[in-house]
Amino acid sequence: MPAPLRFTVSHRSSAARVGVVETPHGSFDTPAFMPVGTRGAVKGVTPHQLADTGAQVTLNNTYHLLLRPGPEQVAALGGVHRFMGWSRPILTDSGGYQAFSMADINAVDDDGVTFKSIVTGTPIHLSPERAIQVQNKLGADIIMAFDDCPPPLDPSAAPPSLARDRHIELRARMKNYDHDARLDLANERTIRWLERCARAHGRPDDQALFGIVQGGTDLARRSWSASRVGNVELPGYAIGGVAVGEPHEEIARVVAHTAALLPDDKPRYLMGVGYERDLVAAVRAGVDMFDCVLPTRNGRNANAFTRTGQLRLRNARFAEDPAPLEDGCDCPACDPAAHGWPADAPLSRAYLRHLFMAREMLGPILLSLHNLRHFQRLMLDIRAAVREDDWSRLEARWPVAAPGLHADLGNP
Amino acid sequence: MPAPLRFTVSHRSSAARVGVVETPHGSFDTPAFMPVGTRGAVKGVTPHQLADTGAQVTLNNTYHLLLRPGPEQVAALGGVHRFMGWSRPILTDSGGYQAFSMADINAVDDDGVTFKSIVTGTPIHLSPERAIQVQNKLGADIIMAFDDCPPPLDPSAAPPSLARDRHIELRARMKNYDHDARLDLANERTIRWLERCARAHGRPDDQALFGIVQGGTDLARRSWSASRVGNVELPGYAIGGVAVGEPHEEIARVVAHTAALLPDDKPRYLMGVGYERDLVAAVRAGVDMFDCVLPTRNGRNANAFTRTGQLRLRNARFAEDPAPLEDGCDCPACDPAAHGWPADAPLSRAYLRHLFMAREMLGPILLSLHNLRHFQRLMLDIRAAVREDDWSRLEARWPVAAPGLHADLGNP
Repeated sequence: MPAPLRFTVSHRSSAARVGVVETPHGSFDTPAFMPVGTRGAVKGVTPHQLADTGAQVTLNNTYHLLLRPGPEQVAALGGVHRFMGWSRPILTDSGGYQAFSMADINAVDDDGVTFKSIVTGTPIHLSPERAIQVQNKLGADIIMAFDDCPPPLDPSAAPPSLARDRHIELRARMKNYDHDARLDLANERTIRWLERCARAHGRPDDQALFGIVQGGTDLARRSWSASRVGNVELPGYAIGGVAVGEPHEEIARVVAHTAALLPDDKPRYLMGVGYERDLVAAVRAGVDMFDCVLPTRNGRNANAFTRTGQLRLRNARFAEDPAPLEDGCDCPACDPAAHGWPADAPLSRAYLRHLFMAREMLGPILLSLHNLRHFQRLMLDIRAAVREDDWSRLEARWPVAAPGLHADLGNP
Repeated sequence: MPAPLRFTVSHRSSAARVGVVETPHGSFDTPAFMPVGTRGAVKGVTPHQLADTGAQVTLNNTYHLLLRPGPEQVAALGGVHRFMGWSRPILTDSGGYQAFSMADINAVDDDGVTFKSIVTGTPIHLSPERAIQVQNKLGADIIMAFDDCPPPLDPSAAPPSLARDRHIELRARMKNYDHDARLDLANERTIRWLERCARAHGRPDDQALFGIVQGGTDLARRSWSASRVGNVELPGYAIGGVAVGEPHEEIARVVAHTAALLPDDKPRYLMGVGYERDLVAAVRAGVDMFDCVLPTRNGRNANAFTRTGQLRLRNARFAEDPAPLEDGCDCPACDPAAHGWPADAPLSRAYLRHLFMAREMLGPILLSLHNLRHFQRLMLDIRAAVREDDWSRLEARWPVAAPGLHADLGNP
């Protein structure tokens, strides 16, 4: 059986490593940041522009593609790469996370989860077998096990994107909710489901199945999960259930503990993370892959990432600001000529603000491109720090990634 | 005084001509199609993508930029080219057309028009002098005279984009409305205002002022206007007040009559037109420049132009259609690899439809790019027809541009 994925580490700096992941659709450098193309499109960005930001691998959400247009439809159109015009590596999640956090759930049991389609209103059932079957049809290079995603201990701390209000309401209705018992159930179920996923996997030769470690913020439960998940021989392993509202220090503590327990020779993927300092801390703990909607979501909301914090472009103080978003940035907004534009100067913050005030699509587009490039530039500098085994330059260049940073600077 | 614009004709085919317009920001080939960047951005399209469609010149609306962010602001940011990151030729209209057709008008008299800002609610006054002063501040290469734009004879035939309902309501309130008298007033006012515009023009060395012929669909009034406007020595002349709801044959009749009356050695610009067959008919009548929002507006509405008519992509019949929008099209959606995408096949109609059904921004973006390229491909073929003095190939390749075409095919 040919391996669907090969991971080669070329440099190390303590637990951090730089390497290459090879897939049937080409390779990507690690540590890697994967932009999120939820419905088969990174919002507002063409695949050409996406590649131009330096992204080498992207993520699609199985939950959304399952509901629309459906896996059979994507398969009939040649699979997800051809579907979206991106012939490079793609990862799909299992759909479990969204089914648990976003959907109108009818039933959860050992067999899986039943929820109502937000598109058609009809009931959809996701089980380990069905989640893998759907991902086999989508055809991504890396697919994820179907796991049980417990809600955070304190839903009111979760970001709104995690259906925070719904979790608060549900929790209020569950009089005797026992979070520890829920974590244990999720941990055990996740292992049982992982074994069912591995058995159901129909394309092990060209799709790499990753297992997912759960356990909340409890290190003992993380150890148990990492040990059991790690015992299933797989091409890679992920850390799930992190960054659902915890502060940076908590994320760093859980990730450092868990990453060290996962096989050293396989890529480690921290799901849904995150801000710059979360990424740096996770890389230093030995994590190789990340995905996050922050660049595009914040871009659409007129928030521009910079190395010293976010600019909220709707703020009136930018109305006459002729400066580019960030000096030294090489994104299309900050250095258009380098991207083939017929332009001889950076776009100004004032112009970009104008686009948002006038509700022009180009505002979200350009800020998404800038933010996507911001995170790819961070990954380039992170890889350089690992190769040179020297983190001092990174810390100097990226104040926003400093561990002691006040949360408000990086976290709007 | 150096000329702000040079027009060189290289080929002719009866009244049609191929040439080059040189401006302080480079040249463009004629006949030219100018995409519309209303608020300093062609909706959904970066300047790089716009140039990639083959566009060499773009149009901005003075009315919109006057209201937001204001001409002083654009000037402080280096002028409209630098403002929007497009260092190639730009044309601005005078703001009159929008002030007359869209705005909540308070007063119109010989001095100009007073209307309420849709941004701030404050009254704005546009006179010939003010319209030129604003355009001098914006700094486009070609600027337009402030003209009196009479409403169409039958407002109910006008497209909704011309505030049709408002015109119907206004007309109903005007008991003794005399369209002929209104046309005469507009004609006379337009001449008086043109003379005031020419006197007020503060940058004749690097901005070419074009006059505008009015006269409605009455050929005698068009003759009168063309003769009077043509008597003012200017770098170019435009035909206004066309395509406000008339059928193709009426547009062609008025344009053919009027274009022949304008100086042969100056570029002729038909404002706000239009569909493919309108463009071909106008070029054959001697018109050199066009602008229209159709490619981007229809693209945002999921309508894709093709050489045989428009595809309405929301139609369920495209849900499983693996074909590209149009065979032989070289736009980024139909031939992504040619545009540097990491893609090895055209995007399917099914995928593009999916983007619209899922409300992904990428749907409007990709259809706008396709439609913009469609019109630039038409202009390329039109120029070839003029150079070869042979229109048979154009007619065979562009069924949608055939003069006898049923209106419904090209006109949704």
